[in-house]
Amino acid sequence: MNENTRLSPGDTIGILGGGQLGRMLALSAASLGLKAHIFCPDPESPAFDVCSAYTIAPYEDIGALDTFASACSAVTYEFENVPALTAAHLAALVPVRPGVKALEVSQDRLSEKDFLSGSGVALAGYARVDSDEDLRAALDRFGGTGVLKTRRFGYDGKGQVMIRKPEDVKGAFDRIGRAPAVLEELIGFEREVSVIVARDLDGHCDAYDVSENHHENHILKTSTVPANVSGTTAAAARDMAIRIASSLDYVGVMGVEMFLSRGTNGETLLVNEIAPRVHNSGHWTEDACLTSQFEQHMRAVAGWRLGACARHSDVVMENLIGDECDAWPEILADPNARLHLYGKREARPGRKMGHVNRISPLTTA
Amino acid sequence: MNENTRLSPGDTIGILGGGQLGRMLALSAASLGLKAHIFCPDPESPAFDVCSAYTIAPYEDIGALDTFASACSAVTYEFENVPALTAAHLAALVPVRPGVKALEVSQDRLSEKDFLSGSGVALAGYARVDSDEDLRAALDRFGGTGVLKTRRFGYDGKGQVMIRKPEDVKGAFDRIGRAPAVLEELIGFEREVSVIVARDLDGHCDAYDVSENHHENHILKTSTVPANVSGTTAAAARDMAIRIASSLDYVGVMGVEMFLSRGTNGETLLVNEIAPRVHNSGHWTEDACLTSQFEQHMRAVAGWRLGACARHSDVVMENLIGDECDAWPEILADPNARLHLYGKREARPGRKMGHVNRISPLTTA
Repeated sequence: MNENTRLSPGDTIGILGGGQLGRMLALSAASLGLKAHIFCPDPESPAFDVCSAYTIAPYEDIGALDTFASACSAVTYEFENVPALTAAHLAALVPVRPGVKALEVSQDRLSEKDFLSGSGVALAGYARVDSDEDLRAALDRFGGTGVLKTRRFGYDGKGQVMIRKPEDVKGAFDRIGRAPAVLEELIGFEREVSVIVARDLDGHCDAYDVSENHHENHILKTSTVPANVSGTTAAAARDMAIRIASSLDYVGVMGVEMFLSRGTNGETLLVNEIAPRVHNSGHWTEDACLTSQFEQHMRAVAGWRLGACARHSDVVMENLIGDECDAWPEILADPNARLHLYGKREARPGRKMGHVNRISPLTTA
Repeated sequence: MNENTRLSPGDTIGILGGGQLGRMLALSAASLGLKAHIFCPDPESPAFDVCSAYTIAPYEDIGALDTFASACSAVTYEFENVPALTAAHLAALVPVRPGVKALEVSQDRLSEKDFLSGSGVALAGYARVDSDEDLRAALDRFGGTGVLKTRRFGYDGKGQVMIRKPEDVKGAFDRIGRAPAVLEELIGFEREVSVIVARDLDGHCDAYDVSENHHENHILKTSTVPANVSGTTAAAARDMAIRIASSLDYVGVMGVEMFLSRGTNGETLLVNEIAPRVHNSGHWTEDACLTSQFEQHMRAVAGWRLGACARHSDVVMENLIGDECDAWPEILADPNARLHLYGKREARPGRKMGHVNRISPLTTA
């Protein structure tokens, strides 16, 4: 197995995970003449509808992984919680991009923060919490407030407890199941922004424009580009994302979430978290850029050159969550909107069913 | 079977034909949350890689057509030479869009020309040719020159004989197999342009901007938008395309090719031919418009509203024919280019293997 394998059109990229991200990656693979093979335990995976082959098996099924690896020239994933065993087993057989290091770092909130500090990017204060004593000590350090988060498997606000006042402390560690955790310093951030960064096999890096993200019920609701930030801040955000990708020897597309606060010293950026995959806050690239984050990721995974991250339009991406997807006829009636639906059968509350990109002429180059 | 059926997300659109057009239609269906079922006799159809289901069977296989129809909420096609029997059989079971009328008219060059004349659009002179005598009479009428074309199954210059001088006449009818034919008047056209027009189930019509097309060896090589034509001519071309779609009670996207000549009276447009399907000269819409011709077609076939035909960028589409697709690494290196490959295994001479769209900022609104 050659770590530096470069694919040719007609070759197959394996994708672990068959949700909407896997689906959009498979669609982008197809437009580049690449085949996609989806591996997912869920027999109703939406990505199965758009791929040349799929495997339904648990991620721990070694036999299925072996067969999958032999059918693929490279493997990627749509989610960072790929079991370590799965990633290691595949990586011995076929290039896995982004690499195992990116998974190890991002699967554990503490490792991630240690890595980010080591990379020289700014982030909020944090402390390791393995016990009630750790929690009390950490709270003392951060003035009695903070967000307690499990180190593993947290997403969309799950596995988190906000501590704003002394009464919040009691039972906080119990509420996250006494799992290994970190306490994050509560910072008075004004808004969340993110950067989608891409890095190819030769180390070339490029980043899309900064998006400004708004959440509802801890789930991303909109991403707006351009973000309402200064040019200096935008450049700094992109530089931070590129620095992180380079430090990880990353191959592929990564989402970097940051908090922006505006103080007497101007705007300050603190990195919140990274996602070693295409990211919901980058869905706007599909309709406002020539090269979408999905195509960009597939190019990098294939060992190909990156496309331009340039934007041809301004854009607001809005997630369609739960039954919001029922508004598809009204969205189709908007001449500036492009509807994206994920082909999921059931519109459960909180489930991401699709998104819409609304574009307008470019206002900033 | 209800002619006016409107689909919902999650429903399946059947596509007759599994080439690159079927493939790009299937990709667009997926982004709208629709499923695509491809029907094609060729077991190596490139569209099979991106659809939720496919059937490999001859177009005349009634049993296979019945099963296909029962799996689909509407059926469309990627090519106009769908056998009449196939279309009629399906149309009795499931809405076929565009309708059978569009196929009947466009499958026969004489019917097409008669229909176009009847719709009040301008076209070059033509005459029916069923014998050598017909050919001589027609040549007399058009000053001794013309293009002899079979009425059926001609494409990319096949089934055509150019008659420019008396020596060309001898054997001309033999060279097209003495098949029923038409002689077209030779006009001194300066360039070919085309319009991609869309019409929905409610009769709403819209057209994309005019493209200017250049051919090599009778195969489309480039389409450029904006075309180098006056605003008046561009508006007239779009109006003609809309008139044709309306006259046909058309549902879906149609390509209308026109010849442009520049004389003392200014620019003159003559309709050359129509294609009742997405069209190669509309591939530019994928990267220069929010709604591509493929999405537009699927929306119309689903009984949904059309998207905007507005263009956000200027663009040149270039076909990659035969081994031209080997230039994919150089194309990836161009920041203004987007590569599209069709996943065909063998790059035979003359075979359309992919295309590239090169965009630039909008110069005309």
